[in-house]
Amino acid sequence: MKQQLSIVKIGGNVIENQVELEQFLLNFSKLEGLKILVHGGGKLATKLAGQLGIDSQMSNGRRITDAKSLEVITMVYGGLTNKNIVSKLQALGTNALGLSGADGNSIQAHKRPVKDIDFGFVGDIDGINADFLNSVLSTGITPVFCAISHDGKGQLLNTNADTIASEIAIGMSPIFDSTLYYCFEKKGVLKDVEDENSVIQHINTETYSDLLQQKVIADGMLPKMENCFHALNNHVSKVCIGDISMLQPNTKLFTTITL
Amino acid sequence: MKQQLSIVKIGGNVIENQVELEQFLLNFSKLEGLKILVHGGGKLATKLAGQLGIDSQMSNGRRITDAKSLEVITMVYGGLTNKNIVSKLQALGTNALGLSGADGNSIQAHKRPVKDIDFGFVGDIDGINADFLNSVLSTGITPVFCAISHDGKGQLLNTNADTIASEIAIGMSPIFDSTLYYCFEKKGVLKDVEDENSVIQHINTETYSDLLQQKVIADGMLPKMENCFHALNNHVSKVCIGDISMLQPNTKLFTTITL
Repeated sequence: MKQQLSIVKIGGNVIENQVELEQFLLNFSKLEGLKILVHGGGKLATKLAGQLGIDSQMSNGRRITDAKSLEVITMVYGGLTNKNIVSKLQALGTNALGLSGADGNSIQAHKRPVKDIDFGFVGDIDGINADFLNSVLSTGITPVFCAISHDGKGQLLNTNADTIASEIAIGMSPIFDSTLYYCFEKKGVLKDVEDENSVIQHINTETYSDLLQQKVIADGMLPKMENCFHALNNHVSKVCIGDISMLQPNTKLFTTITL
Repeated sequence: MKQQLSIVKIGGNVIENQVELEQFLLNFSKLEGLKILVHGGGKLATKLAGQLGIDSQMSNGRRITDAKSLEVITMVYGGLTNKNIVSKLQALGTNALGLSGADGNSIQAHKRPVKDIDFGFVGDIDGINADFLNSVLSTGITPVFCAISHDGKGQLLNTNADTIASEIAIGMSPIFDSTLYYCFEKKGVLKDVEDENSVIQHINTETYSDLLQQKVIADGMLPKMENCFHALNNHVSKVCIGDISMLQPNTKLFTTITL
């Protein structure tokens, strides 16, 4: 039987709330077994860019990562957020190791080709260095990823944190029984967006198809769910979506997704 | 016989010159055997602090690291500089791993006690995690340190890069035959500061004492030399001081320091 591995992604809204972040890190540090953390960046990068007079360029509602924006992202995600999370985890007794995809060549990617839109320095993932991550985990160390990959030619690339988490879960599943956790500000996938407690506790391929038809799953939840099923279709055992209490042993209110 | 390990520190003036940095990284990537890189920060942090309206407070010519300055340092040293060096080394075929002292609990320190001056979030090193660094090196990976340590209680600390390099060299010397390289903008320790080529090729305890009396070694070179002899007095085999060409196999003009 394969050893269990938890891959936990926390979103920007959790990171920016100091109380939520501290509670999340406490829960994460208590989570038993091997684990990997992936953090998003949140609005800190946008705020810093604003202070530096760097326009966050958008195209059809999607952010463009130009050279200056990439510098800001590298400073905020790779530096400030990542190192602070690592030092806080150390204080909680979790021996953490902060990583970008360049470190240990852990996430290989290529710059997204220009089609209709030039997204700039955005990376689409080619592969995960499972051997490296396995060797880190085997020494009792917990990898903590920021949402940056690299192209192997000296270029760092901004990469979606949800995608990094699912690709790590997929890349590690030949070796581990991987569970992917998406931790965000809501208790799970909601039946009614107006009702915070209307959590759908279990979704599978069949019920997902119904939820799509009923338009219960829409907008920002759509790419997240696509990431989930992409992971499940590639040997990840289970995906869970919920708020920071999801990692506590007695919490029952969150969404579990299986095939 | 112990295996050889090179600990190389590059200064801020090299980092800020893109051409020098690229040449240095090429030389470093070609350096044979196990190696560790430590980089300073340079003026980028001061520049960013200025752009953000953060005053770099000084006391008797020495920088005070307040909370805002520490954030800037964490962004610039731990994020921008460190991740860019790592990605460039990957492109040169060196499998690099960027680290602060919090990562893998690799550099333990305490906040400098307040005596005459409160230096703020500045760390004095207590120890190096030699087991962790040894396990990283044994998998063919090259650690790349920024000048940040941590106190194990969740606090990152700004720490002098020269000191980090010498403490790593000392901490690794029970396991390795360590050589410490200080790479900066000059060809070595100069007999005459006006003459760039007046390099003193060999210094030992005896000649050092003479050089001190003759006041050949003064100002900024004094703490650097103290770091060198501190390392040599603690089982580091050899210290070399020179410019980026020092790492090339045929370069003869640099300073070698032994006991």
